[in-house]
Amino acid sequence: MSLFLTVVPVDEAVGIVRRIAPPIRSEEVALADALHRVLADDIRADTDVPGFNRSTVDGYAVIAADTVGAGEALPSMLHCAGRVAMGSRDTGRIAPGACAYVPTGGALPAGADAVVMIEHCEQVGEEVLVHRPVAPGENVVFAGEDFASGEVVLAKGRRLTPADLGVAAAVGAERVSVAAPPRIGIISTGNELVPITAVPAPGEVRDVNSYLCGAFVAEQGCIPVYYGIVRDDLGTLRDALAAALAECDAVLISGGSSKDERDNTAAAIRALGEVLVHGIAIAPGKPTIIGTAGEKPAIGLPGHPASAFVVLTAIVHPLLAAMMQTPERRRIVSARLGQNVPSTRGREDYVRVRVEGGVATPLFGKSGLLNTLVQSDGVIRVPAGSEGLEAGEEVGVILW
Amino acid sequence: MSLFLTVVPVDEAVGIVRRIAPPIRSEEVALADALHRVLADDIRADTDVPGFNRSTVDGYAVIAADTVGAGEALPSMLHCAGRVAMGSRDTGRIAPGACAYVPTGGALPAGADAVVMIEHCEQVGEEVLVHRPVAPGENVVFAGEDFASGEVVLAKGRRLTPADLGVAAAVGAERVSVAAPPRIGIISTGNELVPITAVPAPGEVRDVNSYLCGAFVAEQGCIPVYYGIVRDDLGTLRDALAAALAECDAVLISGGSSKDERDNTAAAIRALGEVLVHGIAIAPGKPTIIGTAGEKPAIGLPGHPASAFVVLTAIVHPLLAAMMQTPERRRIVSARLGQNVPSTRGREDYVRVRVEGGVATPLFGKSGLLNTLVQSDGVIRVPAGSEGLEAGEEVGVILW
Repeated sequence: MSLFLTVVPVDEAVGIVRRIAPPIRSEEVALADALHRVLADDIRADTDVPGFNRSTVDGYAVIAADTVGAGEALPSMLHCAGRVAMGSRDTGRIAPGACAYVPTGGALPAGADAVVMIEHCEQVGEEVLVHRPVAPGENVVFAGEDFASGEVVLAKGRRLTPADLGVAAAVGAERVSVAAPPRIGIISTGNELVPITAVPAPGEVRDVNSYLCGAFVAEQGCIPVYYGIVRDDLGTLRDALAAALAECDAVLISGGSSKDERDNTAAAIRALGEVLVHGIAIAPGKPTIIGTAGEKPAIGLPGHPASAFVVLTAIVHPLLAAMMQTPERRRIVSARLGQNVPSTRGREDYVRVRVEGGVATPLFGKSGLLNTLVQSDGVIRVPAGSEGLEAGEEVGVILW
Repeated sequence: MSLFLTVVPVDEAVGIVRRIAPPIRSEEVALADALHRVLADDIRADTDVPGFNRSTVDGYAVIAADTVGAGEALPSMLHCAGRVAMGSRDTGRIAPGACAYVPTGGALPAGADAVVMIEHCEQVGEEVLVHRPVAPGENVVFAGEDFASGEVVLAKGRRLTPADLGVAAAVGAERVSVAAPPRIGIISTGNELVPITAVPAPGEVRDVNSYLCGAFVAEQGCIPVYYGIVRDDLGTLRDALAAALAECDAVLISGGSSKDERDNTAAAIRALGEVLVHGIAIAPGKPTIIGTAGEKPAIGLPGHPASAFVVLTAIVHPLLAAMMQTPERRRIVSARLGQNVPSTRGREDYVRVRVEGGVATPLFGKSGLLNTLVQSDGVIRVPAGSEGLEAGEEVGVILW
């Protein structure tokens, strides 16, 4: 049967990789080591944050009702009951007609419900002249107003940012449960491949895909496990795949740029499991293979690095996100298309673009060039139902 | 002198941190470990890429002139001189009137200058009928067309992406020279601070900023070195700062949310070096301090985490980029503003926003709240010369 007849749409392929994604176990790490990790459990506030009524300014804590009608001409006069020291557990209490100095971040004395900024007050001996009224709650964050005890502060599945780590610290989450990094086996096949330390003879090329795939999965929070260059024969490839499957949570096999080689990759997967997809309606990247063996995904990527990279972005990214149970994160910027992009109806085209000043310029060039990978900022997607995009159209650029 | 009178504009503060940024030494790492590192030297192609004329399709390598006029009705008939095996060093030579089968990625025989896709050919015994003409160079990447030997492939200062690692592999850069990760000392001051493992008593808060600052600098490729919570007195703070400066390339001191505490941070820097800026026209974040001691930057950040985070983004990010000699990388998406944002002329306002469906919604709330950090996707900048932004305006959102 012709490959062309069996290709599946990108959406369907993505649905399949999500379905075969094995869920990854969780592990506990110290919060300081949790940057970019994916939460395996909700983080809840262990206590009210803040734990007390807290001033957001330097000023005088007051009972708001005592300042009603205060103005420049007729200030409210309050008795200064003292100063609250930062971090002090004993903040006292104020009665009607009294106030107390509180620094930014300090605790209001019991009884107080607002703070007048110091700029609007004048202390004269034991008395404080208040020149502006404040509403109850003004310049105060009340206990539990930021996070209430028990509230979910960061939800399971979230990939932790620096700001998230700060918030987790605020609720005492010193150890957090995160998805263990999936181990992804990386195999490059092709008799033309040589290690990058070699100078390629005519007909030979260096093994780019091990680095490309390894760095791609590392960026997603996975651990790449390298199995190197495997000669393109069925027995050798099957053995390498079996070894990788035994040690990893999923395996990427790139290469086989020729038809015979692609068939070897599919045959190796079939020897150990099942081929679910052989050919995706995507350009570049059509000869992609999706299979499973022992309930682990085995993905065959095109041999050419530029094509492999598109498949990593479109197909492998959703697989890894599903394994870690985190939403896919694509960084998409919108831009105006700088020129027409023709396309073929029935397949999704991924066109590399450079983005400058809000304009996305397609880098057509020859399909076999690597240099477009470094010259481009990302890709635009021309949907399968479209015959192309027109210059001036608003497009979403998926940044690399 | 009032702080207000001495605040400097954000642009000027950024210029100052760039000027005081100490350049960081370089180190060599294996390419597989170089993801997100900053190149300290250009990477050049050590050889032509590809090293030979390479087919981008499965088909027949031909001399293009032999296919002139070929069509369905009147094919060119060429003699098949053989097949080129993948990786083979001996690709032979074809003479006029001859062709050879070449797989995708395979080397053209000497003499050939184009490849006809297999779909447009028909092999009959030793003869191949070519049904379409090809132009010279069609379906071929010539030797050195991707990268020429000696060409700069990736320039000094670039932060390496997965695609970059693939390209570096193609040119044999198995070890690369990158900026050593700067060591950034992190000090939190404030008598109200307790470690995150403690449950804060009234008046106390957990040390959020150590985590926020540590994760922020780690995300930029630096190594955070934690000096913990330092009590807010001049001698203790000065000693901690001296220790951090001795071991690190720069130091961030956060806290001192009250006026007295801010003065302690400035005094500690002054005791060891020089205060260059005390107050920036930015909101939130005005009480920021920029100093140097022993030619190392010492930055005083506001105590409140939400304010500290804005200063990390606006001021510390340019500092770290300058130290590593890499361009600042802000991920900015454009969006339409969902509602008016008032501002005060004369200071740069950073307003946290959530971005959904192309609309940026400002999260005003009280300034003291942490929860806006996790609810927002980034900030918008209201320039110092502006009195505010209007709903519907196109704004650039600096993503966290």
